[in-house]
Amino acid sequence: MVKNRADGSEPQARLLDALRVPAGAVDLSKYDTRATTGFEGTKDDGKVALEQLGAEVSDWQERLFAEGRKGGDRSVLLVLQGMDTSGKGGVIRHGAGLMDPQGLRITSFKAPTPAEKRRGFLWRIRQALPGPGMIGIFDRSHYEDVLIARVRNLVAPPVWNRRYEQINEFEAELAASGITLLKCFLHISPEEQKERLAARLDDGTKHWKYNPGDIDERRHWPAYAEAYEAALEQCNGPAAPWFVIPSDRKWYRNWAVTTLLLETLRDLDPQWPAADFDVQAEKARLATT
Amino acid sequence: MVKNRADGSEPQARLLDALRVPAGAVDLSKYDTRATTGFEGTKDDGKVALEQLGAEVSDWQERLFAEGRKGGDRSVLLVLQGMDTSGKGGVIRHGAGLMDPQGLRITSFKAPTPAEKRRGFLWRIRQALPGPGMIGIFDRSHYEDVLIARVRNLVAPPVWNRRYEQINEFEAELAASGITLLKCFLHISPEEQKERLAARLDDGTKHWKYNPGDIDERRHWPAYAEAYEAALEQCNGPAAPWFVIPSDRKWYRNWAVTTLLLETLRDLDPQWPAADFDVQAEKARLATT
Repeated sequence: MVKNRADGSEPQARLLDALRVPAGAVDLSKYDTRATTGFEGTKDDGKVALEQLGAEVSDWQERLFAEGRKGGDRSVLLVLQGMDTSGKGGVIRHGAGLMDPQGLRITSFKAPTPAEKRRGFLWRIRQALPGPGMIGIFDRSHYEDVLIARVRNLVAPPVWNRRYEQINEFEAELAASGITLLKCFLHISPEEQKERLAARLDDGTKHWKYNPGDIDERRHWPAYAEAYEAALEQCNGPAAPWFVIPSDRKWYRNWAVTTLLLETLRDLDPQWPAADFDVQAEKARLATT
Repeated sequence: MVKNRADGSEPQARLLDALRVPAGAVDLSKYDTRATTGFEGTKDDGKVALEQLGAEVSDWQERLFAEGRKGGDRSVLLVLQGMDTSGKGGVIRHGAGLMDPQGLRITSFKAPTPAEKRRGFLWRIRQALPGPGMIGIFDRSHYEDVLIARVRNLVAPPVWNRRYEQINEFEAELAASGITLLKCFLHISPEEQKERLAARLDDGTKHWKYNPGDIDERRHWPAYAEAYEAALEQCNGPAAPWFVIPSDRKWYRNWAVTTLLLETLRDLDPQWPAADFDVQAEKARLATT
C-alpha cells in the first residue's frame, strides 16, 4: 500500500480499501490496535493532517446537503462501535466537528427503554436515520443488540442469533433507499482501555464519564471480542461494509475515520444542483426591487 | 462601553448588556446594521477573535453537557431569526461549528406541514427543545407564526394577535423548566440583502440556496420590519430576552452571537459533576482487571 504523507505529496491509496474487513472469518487478535495504516508521520503530523481534511470534507458535505435539498435522496450513515473508552465521542468531536453541524444528525444510543424494547430492536434505529443530504452518525447502534445483548444474556440465544440476518435485511433496505453505510469498529487493546479508565479516575473533570459498570463490562472482554467477530463476520455485505480502525492512538483513529468519510463522499461525488429557475430573469426581477 | 480588543488585552464589557433590546417600543430603523458594537478591530481581527472563542465555549459546553448527564436539567436555546440571507446558517456553521456537535441540537423550521398546523403552532417547537445539558439552536422558530403568518395573512389577525401572549407563556414555561433562552434577530439592511441575493444568483454553487419566492418576501420588507418590531416589543420578558445583532458584516455577526452564547454559558457556570462513586475503590477494582 502506498503511504500517505502528512503533506499530501504522494498519491493517496484508498483507506477504504486498506481498512475494509475482508469477507470471511474475522480474528481480531490479528489486527494491530496500534497500527497507523495508510499514514506516515508523527502524532503532530496526524493532527495537522486531520485539520487539513476539514475544507474538503466540508465542501463535499455541503454538496450532499444541497443535493438533498433539491430532491436527492442520498445520505451517509457513519456507525461507530467499540468498547468503552475506544473513542466514539472523540471521533465525533474531532472528526465530525470539522463539518457544518447543520448537516449532521448525531444519535447516541443508550440502553433501550421498556417502550423501545416493545417495538423491536430496530424501531429506534429507524427513527434516527439521516434524512436526504445528511450525514448521520450513530454512537453505538443496532449492533449493541448482538453485542451486550449476547454477552450479558439480555435476550435468549435464539433471539440474538436471528438478529444477524435481520440486521442484514435492514441494512440492505437502507442501502437501497440511498443511505451509504460506513461501519467503523474502533479497536483498542485491553491494556489501552485500562490506561484510559485509570486516566478518567485520576481526572476530576472526567469523573462524569466514568461508570463503575465499565469495569464489569471489561471483565467480559474475551466474550465481547467474540461477539464483535461474529458481527463483523456475519453482517459485512458489500452494501454495508465494516472497517476496523486501529484506535490505541487517538490521533490516528480520528484521522482514519474522517478520511474514510471523506473518501465515501468523494465516491458519492455530489454535484451542485442546477438552478431550477431562470437566472437572468431573477437577476432582472431583483434589480427592480 | 468598554471595547473588546481582538487580543483580549482589555476587560470585556458584557455583550449581553450591549445588544439587549431594552423594554418598550422598538424602532429597528434606529439600529445600525453595520455596527460592530463591543468589538474593536478589522474583519481579519474579528475572524481570529471568533476562532479564539472556540476553546472556552467548548469547555463550557462540555461542562453543561456533563451536568445534564448527571441529573442537571439546564440547557440553552439559541433562537435565530432574520430576513433571508441574514446569515442564520452562517452563524451555525462558523459559531456553533466551534463546539462539539454531540452537544448541539439544531432544528431548521420550514413552512409547517398540514399535520403540524393541526397541532397548534407550538407543538413542533416543543418536539425540538434541547434536552438537559444540550445547546439547542433554532434556525427560524415559533416567531415565524407572528412574522410571515402576519405579513402574508396566513391566519386571521385575531389568531396571530393572540400568539404574542401564547409565546410569552410558552417561553416562561421553558425558562421555568431550566432552558435559558437567547433570542437573536440578525438585522440586515435591504441593500445588503440585495447584494447577497445578487451574489447567490452570480454563483452556480449557491443557486440551490436561491428561491424566487425570496424576492416576493423582499417586497414586503416594511411589513416584516413592523412585524419584527412587534415581536421584539411584545415578547421580550426578562426570562426570554431579545438581542439585535448588526448583521451586515458577516464576521461581526458570527463573533457577536458566539460571544453572547459564551457569556450565557459563563453566567450558567456549570461545574464538573462530582464522582457519584468511590474513586479509590474504583482504582483498586481497575487494578485487579
